[in-house]
Amino acid sequence: MYETLTQLRVRYAETDQMNVVYYGNYAQYFEVGRVESIRNLGISYKDIEEAGVIMPVVEMHVRYLRSARYDDLLTIKTTLRELPEDHRIEFFQEVYNESEKLLTSGRVVLYFLDAATQQKTPMPQNLREKLQPFFPAK
Amino acid sequence: MYETLTQLRVRYAETDQMNVVYYGNYAQYFEVGRVESIRNLGISYKDIEEAGVIMPVVEMHVRYLRSARYDDLLTIKTTLRELPEDHRIEFFQEVYNESEKLLTSGRVVLYFLDAATQQKTPMPQNLREKLQPFFPAK
Amino acid sequence: MYETLTQLRVRYAETDQMNVVYYGNYAQYFEVGRVESIRNLGISYKDIEEAGVIMPVVEMHVRYLRSARYDDLLTIKTTLRELPEDHRIEFFQEVYNESEKLLTSGRVVLYFLDAATQQKTPMPQNLREKLQPFFPAK
Amino acid sequence: MYETLTQLRVRYAETDQMNVVYYGNYAQYFEVGRVESIRNLGISYKDIEEAGVIMPVVEMHVRYLRSARYDDLLTIKTTLRELPEDHRIEFFQEVYNESEKLLTSGRVVLYFLDAATQQKTPMPQNLREKLQPFFPAK
Repeated sequence: MYETLTQLRVRYAETDQMNVVYYGNYAQYFEVGRVESIRNLGISYKDIEEAGVIMPVVEMHVRYLRSARYDDLLTIKTTLRELPEDHRIEFFQEVYNESEKLLTSGRVVLYFLDAATQQKTPMPQNLREKLQPFFPAK
Repeated sequence: MYETLTQLRVRYAETDQMNVVYYGNYAQYFEVGRVESIRNLGISYKDIEEAGVIMPVVEMHVRYLRSARYDDLLTIKTTLRELPEDHRIEFFQEVYNESEKLLTSGRVVLYFLDAATQQKTPMPQNLREKLQPFFPAK
Repeated sequence: MYETLTQLRVRYAETDQMNVVYYGNYAQYFEVGRVESIRNLGISYKDIEEAGVIMPVVEMHVRYLRSARYDDLLTIKTTLRELPEDHRIEFFQEVYNESEKLLTSGRVVLYFLDAATQQKTPMPQNLREKLQPFFPAK
Repeated sequence: MYETLTQLRVRYAETDQMNVVYYGNYAQYFEVGRVESIRNLGISYKDIEEAGVIMPVVEMHVRYLRSARYDDLLTIKTTLRELPEDHRIEFFQEVYNESEKLLTSGRVVLYFLDAATQQKTPMPQNLREKLQPFFPAK
């Protein structure tokens, strides 16, 4: 398992007139969580794109349990439960507030695609090598 | 069954550097579909809020099949398969492009809440009356 | 002078907890106004980009006079007061609500750039020809 | 003079298909700069709102000199050149990239309003007291 925590603060722009974070904005929070999770391995998602691989989201599932509010300092927990075997990677993501209450939980599936051909491609080798130690052989 | 179609055009702001609509923006497209679906009954969501009922999203599930691109004229199909029995309402939503290709399909669950108490409340009576004819007794 | 009107409806996502449209979202409304203004000439901004010319914004000035609210049907007035002589184009933009109250007025300056070289380039000839009739020689 | 620096990292959602940050998103970056500038005084903007004062933006002016790109770590410089005398406060804001290049400069004017009456009101006393030391009498 590979798990990271990232923090961000809710912006005024992200609230709506229900006085909470607009439900669509969690996609951005999840994105920040995934990007920082990869950076924590010593690779940036930007590097991956520059090496010719893009990672479009193909599936997103979100459960909204409690609201996030303006100026809340949120913690995004991003978890890989399995080492990707092929072109598919699945992140489990949770958002907590400062009282450590779980606000939102999600699951996001992305594909690795060759940017030039738009065809599925396996996870880049440098990313695999960095992730391998977190998934010891059973 | 109650089904409506709504159109909207992709804004430049909604694209990202992958040259497609950012995955998080479909939540807004779905919102537009639901709001116009309710307006089509002769009630606006704004009226519902002003009558003291809010409708937070509690669940969202999205599958991304094909990309939407800048300036595409999209059609949002919004479907209620069942008449809500209590405080829970579930919308099925699909996004098509001008070539009638299905780009995205989703399912969004919302609750009816009393704005003052934040407690679950049944679907407002005026909305029920408007929807009833689309769901004849078996 | 060349002037067009475009309508759009305020989305829930675009409000903030002050119960009005977030100030930053007017940039999107202005963008919609400019894009539809060009489309009204029989050319789409998408075509311009595909022909190798991009139009980055280099200046924006906005005055916020009254608030736009959720579900308001807004009218965006987009005006070219002068035919561009070179790589610079300046739009005057106003946002009105359904009571015909002026909510926001803005001025946006864009450059025509060659997408490949990122260098300034004159307004594309097809756009010039379409605009010319609105600016008769004095 | 009162000046603060704040950092933030460009999100994928904030880019557009020109491969740069969408021009409208700088309003959010400026907002983050102002909010952190106030927090640095020991007061949060959230506290100000909870004390019944809101601060709508009434004017924004932006010059876009260079582009910000995905994953850039930006520095927002936020400056008050004068201590507000009444209901009006004016921030000068600049955005720099990691190479210390100036990308964007802006000026944002906000009003202090009584949230209940929506009338202009002077700057809250606690904010004045915190700012006073940065503006010694001449």
